[in-house]
Amino acid sequence: MKKSILFIFLSFSIGMSAQTDSAMIASIYQEALVNGECYENLRVLCKDVGNRIAGSKNAERAMEWGVRVMKGYALDSVYTMPVEVPHWERGKKEVGCYASKKSNECFDIVALGGSVGTDNAINAYVIEVKSIQQLRDLPEEKVKGKIVFFNKAMDPMLINTGAAYGGAYDIRSDGPSEAAKKGAVGCLIRSLTLADDKFAHTGGTQYQDGVTKIPAAALSSVDARLLSQALVKDNELLFTLHLTCKLFPRVMQGNVIGEIRGSVHPEKVIVVGGHLDSWDVGEGAHDDGTGVTQSIEVLRILKTIGYKPKYTIRAVLFMNEEFGNDGGETYARVVKEMNEEHIAAIESDGGGLTPQGFNLQGNEKQLAQLQSWAPLFEPYQLFRFKPGWSGVDIGPLKNDTIGLYGLSVDSQRYFDFHHSNNDIFENVNKREHTLGAAAMAGLVYLIDQHETSK
Amino acid sequence: MKKSILFIFLSFSIGMSAQTDSAMIASIYQEALVNGECYENLRVLCKDVGNRIAGSKNAERAMEWGVRVMKGYALDSVYTMPVEVPHWERGKKEVGCYASKKSNECFDIVALGGSVGTDNAINAYVIEVKSIQQLRDLPEEKVKGKIVFFNKAMDPMLINTGAAYGGAYDIRSDGPSEAAKKGAVGCLIRSLTLADDKFAHTGGTQYQDGVTKIPAAALSSVDARLLSQALVKDNELLFTLHLTCKLFPRVMQGNVIGEIRGSVHPEKVIVVGGHLDSWDVGEGAHDDGTGVTQSIEVLRILKTIGYKPKYTIRAVLFMNEEFGNDGGETYARVVKEMNEEHIAAIESDGGGLTPQGFNLQGNEKQLAQLQSWAPLFEPYQLFRFKPGWSGVDIGPLKNDTIGLYGLSVDSQRYFDFHHSNNDIFENVNKREHTLGAAAMAGLVYLIDQHETSK
Repeated sequence: MKKSILFIFLSFSIGMSAQTDSAMIASIYQEALVNGECYENLRVLCKDVGNRIAGSKNAERAMEWGVRVMKGYALDSVYTMPVEVPHWERGKKEVGCYASKKSNECFDIVALGGSVGTDNAINAYVIEVKSIQQLRDLPEEKVKGKIVFFNKAMDPMLINTGAAYGGAYDIRSDGPSEAAKKGAVGCLIRSLTLADDKFAHTGGTQYQDGVTKIPAAALSSVDARLLSQALVKDNELLFTLHLTCKLFPRVMQGNVIGEIRGSVHPEKVIVVGGHLDSWDVGEGAHDDGTGVTQSIEVLRILKTIGYKPKYTIRAVLFMNEEFGNDGGETYARVVKEMNEEHIAAIESDGGGLTPQGFNLQGNEKQLAQLQSWAPLFEPYQLFRFKPGWSGVDIGPLKNDTIGLYGLSVDSQRYFDFHHSNNDIFENVNKREHTLGAAAMAGLVYLIDQHETSK
Repeated sequence: MKKSILFIFLSFSIGMSAQTDSAMIASIYQEALVNGECYENLRVLCKDVGNRIAGSKNAERAMEWGVRVMKGYALDSVYTMPVEVPHWERGKKEVGCYASKKSNECFDIVALGGSVGTDNAINAYVIEVKSIQQLRDLPEEKVKGKIVFFNKAMDPMLINTGAAYGGAYDIRSDGPSEAAKKGAVGCLIRSLTLADDKFAHTGGTQYQDGVTKIPAAALSSVDARLLSQALVKDNELLFTLHLTCKLFPRVMQGNVIGEIRGSVHPEKVIVVGGHLDSWDVGEGAHDDGTGVTQSIEVLRILKTIGYKPKYTIRAVLFMNEEFGNDGGETYARVVKEMNEEHIAAIESDGGGLTPQGFNLQGNEKQLAQLQSWAPLFEPYQLFRFKPGWSGVDIGPLKNDTIGLYGLSVDSQRYFDFHHSNNDIFENVNKREHTLGAAAMAGLVYLIDQHETSK
């Protein structure tokens, strides 16, 4: 008898709790969709600050913007955390031209992030390969003194476009060093995009230790096809590559942080974040202006609807995800030094596109809990709650107890914008962007209410 | 013993069948994503033909385009089916201006489809209401001689934006007649959109029998707000409305049809379709250039991969969904007259956006079958297989046996474009559009293989 009374009581309280959760999540979505401010904040970041590569003046202006916006929301505290970042400058707008017996053409190219410059222009023959493996299989004399052109496309059959990016990414990260090992003097890559257009996409390259640093740039997908076609007609094709980019000494910038103090466990933290830096092209709208404005919006929503969190909710706008993850590494180091317990971190860095759910890097218990919340998110068309990638910035926080969550979005358009002049405010849809912020706020609320990992 | 052998055999053949289905669907997606032509076809329809309201010269050109494209794919037959359609012309670009003691302003407005013109300009005071019910509750003297301004927004909390449209749609369809019943001389509506912008959205209005036809136009969401604010400051606000639109006698145009003849049951048909007509603004890209080009692409894909369907697969480009559904009504009538059995019809008319699954109007058995295919579509991120709305054009085919399927897509951006100058080719993403065609071809294949309704 007692047992069944307990059961009735428990069912009742679980029922009540689900009802409260459902009502709270409805309030969160209402505030986001009716009074949302993240889209207007994004407009200001994109249009008034613009792109903001770490180490640049614009990155400093972005930090000021972040402090100003969060102070405007009267959070419990807003501050910056010093982060040392690289300082690389693109220099003049790059142009790459080829000339063969059959034709000649100039392309609108972009140096890869971190590339060395060319001093004067390089003139060299081009050898095209489809992959790093194909390059490795070539005899050195075929490559020596040439520009290696990695013409590898992202696989259109991978419906998860992040996986398609992951499958082609090596030509950008390792291509230049692999080419240098064979004696190449320069490197060109087909842009990492699924679109067939004239936008060239940059992104960081990593020179390997002890390998000659050779200049490297990306061609748009259309230009990569044109170059490949020109090589078919005449493989004695001279390419002129002139890059004026340069690496300067590292500088101090910082993560921008705002928080609502926890009412029960102020010393324990739930982080929500994205990265404030972008590449130095376009406006860094989807990558990752949307993530930082959504993270700020989570705090604004929770504060506006009068929610008093048990734990400290902290928005972190990380400085320098793109070229070394200094923001994420520094944050995790400081947290460890301060012995500050983090129970969860949520990142949005897949673009301000229609949210589909959350990926989890965590344990079985966290996964079961996340999946138990699926019905609460169903009215908002979130359906994907699976183990998976969370985010670069929050990655260094990984330990045995923290749950790392990544906002999972409809990824079909993302790589059309990513790291290119096409990543501008106009290509972000207000509703898609705002729904992501609401989903993140909903998850923060649920974790704050139901945290049981300890 | 026999039983278990039968069981093993059955499991084996079911396993084999699922394997074959999975491989076929992979071929379909491969063909669509690697060699897809629907996006280029859409470009030509949008840019070379342009918008194509039924009854217009452009609608005829669109029919010619449809015949030409499908003949180019060497289908078993391509033909047109005569359809009588209305002929309404917008006339000159509309402008609506207000003047009050406090301010004056002109707005870029659009007449609602089917609206009468104003002969000369109308000058009348404006009365704002939030709904038809609010209008009904007003005494006649408050409305008589005025322009009724329906300032009703779509509900942003409805994540299914089609439902939000359905909830506000009455101001466009019934608003003018309801206003006329109270003695109003004109009608303005806030555009049916979730965006906060300057695009005015048209769409058909239905005058009720025996009620005076008054001129009606839509304001953009931003202009509706401005007008409402001006009315707060001064409710003696004169609005000048000048519409030169006009209804002409009905004309003959037609549905454009292409088919691959069935190899086993040529007399039984699976239809895949969208509507060829659009409103006379923008380019009719998402509404419904994407649906017609996807429908054609389904045939192209199946033919290219060498699939021989058991049933006849027919693409129908319906003429005039927007203003009376003549294409759909005529098609269903002709099918009935010819006693032609249709086992399924699939429509795409929700925009060329990321597909999420299919809605079904059908019976329990069809629903169970559709849901049993979910695992086959999971690799392609389709997850929604539910009872729901299929499409206007195929609706008249409804009977006790047919399965009517609607491609379900991510609807967040759709009403930003719908019926406005913003519905242009550039706002369709190639990959999102193409994935819809692949999903439709996959469903056609599965129905063709596994049809068991009879």
